[in-house]
Amino acid sequence: MFVKNDRLSCFAQAETLALGRGFMSLPIDLSLFEGLSHSPSFGSLTDGLGEMKSQLKDYCIPVNPYFPTAAMFHSFRERLEATLKFYPAYNETIADSLAKTLGLDPETIVMGNGSTELITWINHLFIKDSMGIPIPTFSRWTEDPLATGKTVNLLQRPESANFSLTVEQYVSFMRATNSRVVVLCNPNNPTGAFMEVSDIVRMMDALADRDLVVIDESFVDFVTDGPVPTVGDEAVRRKNVIVLKSLGKNFGLHGVRAGYVLANPQLAQQLRKRLPYWNLNAMAEMLVRELPFHLDEYELGRRQVVRDRKYLEEALGHVGGLKVFPSQANFVFFRVPDDIDGTALRNHLLTEHGCLTRECGNKVGTDKRYFRVAARPRGDTDRLVRALTSSLSEMRASATCDCLAG
Amino acid sequence: MFVKNDRLSCFAQAETLALGRGFMSLPIDLSLFEGLSHSPSFGSLTDGLGEMKSQLKDYCIPVNPYFPTAAMFHSFRERLEATLKFYPAYNETIADSLAKTLGLDPETIVMGNGSTELITWINHLFIKDSMGIPIPTFSRWTEDPLATGKTVNLLQRPESANFSLTVEQYVSFMRATNSRVVVLCNPNNPTGAFMEVSDIVRMMDALADRDLVVIDESFVDFVTDGPVPTVGDEAVRRKNVIVLKSLGKNFGLHGVRAGYVLANPQLAQQLRKRLPYWNLNAMAEMLVRELPFHLDEYELGRRQVVRDRKYLEEALGHVGGLKVFPSQANFVFFRVPDDIDGTALRNHLLTEHGCLTRECGNKVGTDKRYFRVAARPRGDTDRLVRALTSSLSEMRASATCDCLAG
Repeated sequence: MFVKNDRLSCFAQAETLALGRGFMSLPIDLSLFEGLSHSPSFGSLTDGLGEMKSQLKDYCIPVNPYFPTAAMFHSFRERLEATLKFYPAYNETIADSLAKTLGLDPETIVMGNGSTELITWINHLFIKDSMGIPIPTFSRWTEDPLATGKTVNLLQRPESANFSLTVEQYVSFMRATNSRVVVLCNPNNPTGAFMEVSDIVRMMDALADRDLVVIDESFVDFVTDGPVPTVGDEAVRRKNVIVLKSLGKNFGLHGVRAGYVLANPQLAQQLRKRLPYWNLNAMAEMLVRELPFHLDEYELGRRQVVRDRKYLEEALGHVGGLKVFPSQANFVFFRVPDDIDGTALRNHLLTEHGCLTRECGNKVGTDKRYFRVAARPRGDTDRLVRALTSSLSEMRASATCDCLAG
Repeated sequence: MFVKNDRLSCFAQAETLALGRGFMSLPIDLSLFEGLSHSPSFGSLTDGLGEMKSQLKDYCIPVNPYFPTAAMFHSFRERLEATLKFYPAYNETIADSLAKTLGLDPETIVMGNGSTELITWINHLFIKDSMGIPIPTFSRWTEDPLATGKTVNLLQRPESANFSLTVEQYVSFMRATNSRVVVLCNPNNPTGAFMEVSDIVRMMDALADRDLVVIDESFVDFVTDGPVPTVGDEAVRRKNVIVLKSLGKNFGLHGVRAGYVLANPQLAQQLRKRLPYWNLNAMAEMLVRELPFHLDEYELGRRQVVRDRKYLEEALGHVGGLKVFPSQANFVFFRVPDDIDGTALRNHLLTEHGCLTRECGNKVGTDKRYFRVAARPRGDTDRLVRALTSSLSEMRASATCDCLAG
């Protein structure tokens, strides 16, 4: 609770505002947020909530809510025991199956235990001394290289340009800092800023002399409800490019841990031969095996997520005081007014409204005024917008109270 | 099929013997076994079998058939969707939970995406130039270091001593070869040979000057139906010892990918900080969270597996011509007579009797006369023993036929 216990009248006023909706405060252990560069898991936050767990809605992790379909989950459940009791197939076998489904050359694809495993091994095998990356970004891209003694050159994305970069800004920074490996998350996490394919190709041309160029396309499926824009086909024709893709994010299964990279066969093989055997679990194998029979359903869901993001973007624009940045991912980034403490707002949204959001105070290149929230079905977005409006109002009422009392 | 098509009368005779039981030959793609150092996955072998899949019984992978219980699987199924849609907790959070359940110091435990991931990272971080290991052994222990250019010194386990080694044999080999890292799988895979805890401790004392001593206790839960003998408590008190444990093997969930190591806090931290974030998937997390409520059931199952192995050992002893080696794991190792081609026997058992076994011809330090079969409930063992007896007899009848015709 952001309201101090010694201000009982203010507390009561805030409580009235907060609980007038018949919502009981959730007894969540807020210390779980401390000392982490990511958010605590949804599971650890809901531990001990019992029946109240159902009151918590997650807007922190951008999960595709339309996939896998209910029928797919039914099928997964039926086969669960047989699936989990045996070793999964080899990485290559599963990757071959995925390549066939997606129409890709199996020699250019390497699967990993989530994109995070692939980031760890890319850092280990290919980032020898220095890398450059725009921030804010997915923390694994900065923390892994830093923890292993590499130089990490950080290029601040300009808020004035909605966190977008031009090719020239990016290339000249990488040259000026002599970054041997360059990484770009496109669309960017957490801002949702997106660089067009033609620009990425120009950038790759300009950086053909680097050790490696990585385009992290983890969220690229949600850029548009038209065809998915990707530089995967360009990557496999080039000597020094890796494109990273996430299956968990696209297919709504973060818990399964599955991602892949696309690269020319030689580069792919360098990575493939070093990854642990059986790095993919049997649920990931089952997902890949099921996929060819459900591509149409995935496509419908994917397009709906894009529409949900547009709705979210617009709806957040109606919350007074928020600065909402244009996004082309399945989440939206916004800044709260300067008089609002972001951490207190995150906690208030969580305990008083059951809305778990991503307050970005622990991300390099941003601070606690910035939030990332996931695109969800309209009803969920409406709930979040109501909660935000209410929390901001309650916090201001309480602040006024504090001020008068002080 | 081992019977050549041009020997129709013999084929018919063999078919009669094989199919008199009303068993249809299984149309399995035997080429899946080629070029691998492990067996093809059960899933890939059963692909395309359709309804006939139920006729195939796996004796290749030593899966604990008594755990998780049916009630646990029911609970897993019910929570599947919520489990898979979110990120799992961090490695450390899950490891803390496991440590609490097992009464271990959380600082001494590191969890991995299966013991294979831990082997890969132990090789990467700690095996600098040379290692020594007795063979035959789990292939990951030799292949990963060899693939990354390390010297791997192989000590043949003597068949005359049932593949057991004395401490003196082991230590003097490691000293003579100047192996800086030494590995011992105890019990050994695939032979089942076991070295007593007091001997391992003597060995660790004698090798205190090595860079690292790894005791792979992946199968140690099945040594005896008394208390589990482990050197985990010794390892965490020493500077240079890691004990590796497998959760998939113990808890009957190879597809989940979960294992852990025990080591002194400093060594554990060196490994922990380099493993990929979120390397454990949400099913592994669910298993660890459920475990404290099912330890009694696990213990009952574990002891039953030991009794099943004893039964298997004895039953195989009654199959004429087999040399059965004493085992203290959840599998038994045996040698077929010299006049039998092991690969043909494996294929015959598979296609004509639906029994998938592990023929060890692709394991360094053994050849295709050697088989590893998993301890399973008595009915399954009886089926395997009947199949073995029948296959050996059918193969000999066919060989006689071939001989007469030739």
